[in-house]
Amino acid sequence: MADLVNIAVDAMGGDNAPGEIVKGAVLALDKAKDLKVTLVGREDDVRKELSNYTYDPNRIDVVHASEVIEMAEPPVMAVRNKKDSSLVKCMYLVKEGKCDALVTAGSTGAFLVGGQIIVGRIKGVERPPLAPFIPTVNGRCLLLDCGANVDARPTQLVQFAKIGSAYAKKVCGIASPRVGIVNIGAEEEKGNALVKETFPLLKATPEINFIGSVEARDIPYGAADVVVCEAFTGNVILKMYEGVGSALLKSMKDAFMSTTRSKIGAALAKPALKKTLKAYDVNQYGGAPLLGCNGLIVKTHGSSKAVSITNSILQCKTFADQNINDDIREMFSISTDI
Amino acid sequence: MADLVNIAVDAMGGDNAPGEIVKGAVLALDKAKDLKVTLVGREDDVRKELSNYTYDPNRIDVVHASEVIEMAEPPVMAVRNKKDSSLVKCMYLVKEGKCDALVTAGSTGAFLVGGQIIVGRIKGVERPPLAPFIPTVNGRCLLLDCGANVDARPTQLVQFAKIGSAYAKKVCGIASPRVGIVNIGAEEEKGNALVKETFPLLKATPEINFIGSVEARDIPYGAADVVVCEAFTGNVILKMYEGVGSALLKSMKDAFMSTTRSKIGAALAKPALKKTLKAYDVNQYGGAPLLGCNGLIVKTHGSSKAVSITNSILQCKTFADQNINDDIREMFSISTDI
Repeated sequence: MADLVNIAVDAMGGDNAPGEIVKGAVLALDKAKDLKVTLVGREDDVRKELSNYTYDPNRIDVVHASEVIEMAEPPVMAVRNKKDSSLVKCMYLVKEGKCDALVTAGSTGAFLVGGQIIVGRIKGVERPPLAPFIPTVNGRCLLLDCGANVDARPTQLVQFAKIGSAYAKKVCGIASPRVGIVNIGAEEEKGNALVKETFPLLKATPEINFIGSVEARDIPYGAADVVVCEAFTGNVILKMYEGVGSALLKSMKDAFMSTTRSKIGAALAKPALKKTLKAYDVNQYGGAPLLGCNGLIVKTHGSSKAVSITNSILQCKTFADQNINDDIREMFSISTDI
Repeated sequence: MADLVNIAVDAMGGDNAPGEIVKGAVLALDKAKDLKVTLVGREDDVRKELSNYTYDPNRIDVVHASEVIEMAEPPVMAVRNKKDSSLVKCMYLVKEGKCDALVTAGSTGAFLVGGQIIVGRIKGVERPPLAPFIPTVNGRCLLLDCGANVDARPTQLVQFAKIGSAYAKKVCGIASPRVGIVNIGAEEEKGNALVKETFPLLKATPEINFIGSVEARDIPYGAADVVVCEAFTGNVILKMYEGVGSALLKSMKDAFMSTTRSKIGAALAKPALKKTLKAYDVNQYGGAPLLGCNGLIVKTHGSSKAVSITNSILQCKTFADQNINDDIREMFSISTDI
């Protein structure tokens, strides 16, 4: 059993814990054979949920954690004080090499703090970026940083570009991912102070295929494979994706239901539409990894259901199988000056 | 004829000039009786377009301008050197009180520069913000600044909030518009340095109804009537609106056309859907005014068709009728300390 990839899962994190989390973990085992899950949380609660399913007991471990970090807790204090929380215990399982990766739907703040303090950064990485995939009309693009480092400096954005590039190469199988910087116009002289300072640095980074500025409008059209920005902007982009998409769909559903004629139309168009709408679900690609840490750690949406947990676990397995962190380590061992 | 509102229209600005611009101007005259339009551009070209329509010659003036500012020209140089351009001439018509407002689909950069340099700022206003309405599930919200001032300071954001509040009060008829600041979380301690510094200033501004942080995800759901941010973020929000909306609709159209069944469904649902999709068109509310200038000046999308020009002209008429600038002047004469 030594070659099973072992993923630590925070069974108590998120709005739907532990029920959906445990369910998602069991489903993941069905989808990948050489996978093991370590569920971390209140043992009684976790075992109770597990009793609803049939599963291979050799492929699920339960590690008891008496505490839970709540969403609203100040992150630094929570990570420091709640040593027996499910999230902190997951972090230590990765740090100590007992697990290969972790997935949590819990507090983003505690996840970011724990990732940096407990799991730690790869040597040379200043600030690990949170890097989800977002959907485009013809595929997906990697957005980083989308929440970890507001007010990041230009050299940090260059690191995001390098890390994102290494990651997209492996995960998407693109030989030379196109890296763009979010800007308010296509011309080089446009932008705020941060973008103007970062632009020439990116141009002078040989490890990446920098294609210049990308306007927010063009991101959904697949203008770049890797989109770099500081975390405030990245968060706004991600949240606008969710907000505009869901608001538009809500209004369209209301429109479909408004007349008998449109109801019939909706019923007929449903199968074709469903596929399209699924392609725009921001959560389809699993969670967002905090890249550049000494371990694979992934945050999924707080409202994650079982399917998101399953996808995130499978995503972690891919990370582990592809040794992505080795690529990032290699990139930063070549040029430690940035 | 003295009480006609006179709108200067840059007949040469935008991708579809002069054809769609002239058409939009003529259509506007049909929609509002006490309105006059001054078309500024190459007289021969403008008169040729006008010859396609029937209109009241007393309500259309043509002012000749031999030059055109192109989209890619460096804005400051263009405004300084092209004194006989259609845009600069429009600006002077407003500055000299010969016209009540102006509409252009031309270069945004030249528009921003000309607004500040030629038309000038209302006393006390540091940096006029560009302020479009964006659609929400149940109406619209005013987004400012969406492009004029990147790297704006906290005191400038407070000005945006005050100006936006005065504007939304009049235009939307809301007694006490809810003002929110764009943030990456709802809690007061979240945000980048700019937001953290601006937040307490907004709380301490008695002229506005400050409701705190607004996450980008909630903007399309109508979380605030007035949404304040610096221009880089505002531009990203506006462009994401356009990008996600249009990409999603494109994919849905493809889905509708993918099978015979879905084609029939689409035909049936079309009337109901059309209304909904129109409600999400970012350009439906006319253009974006640069608020806080000594005159009403409005920028519409570079790709504007006649209907956008018509809407923007009618929007200018509303501005003029409601004396919105008097409200902004009054607000800044009370507290000139910010």
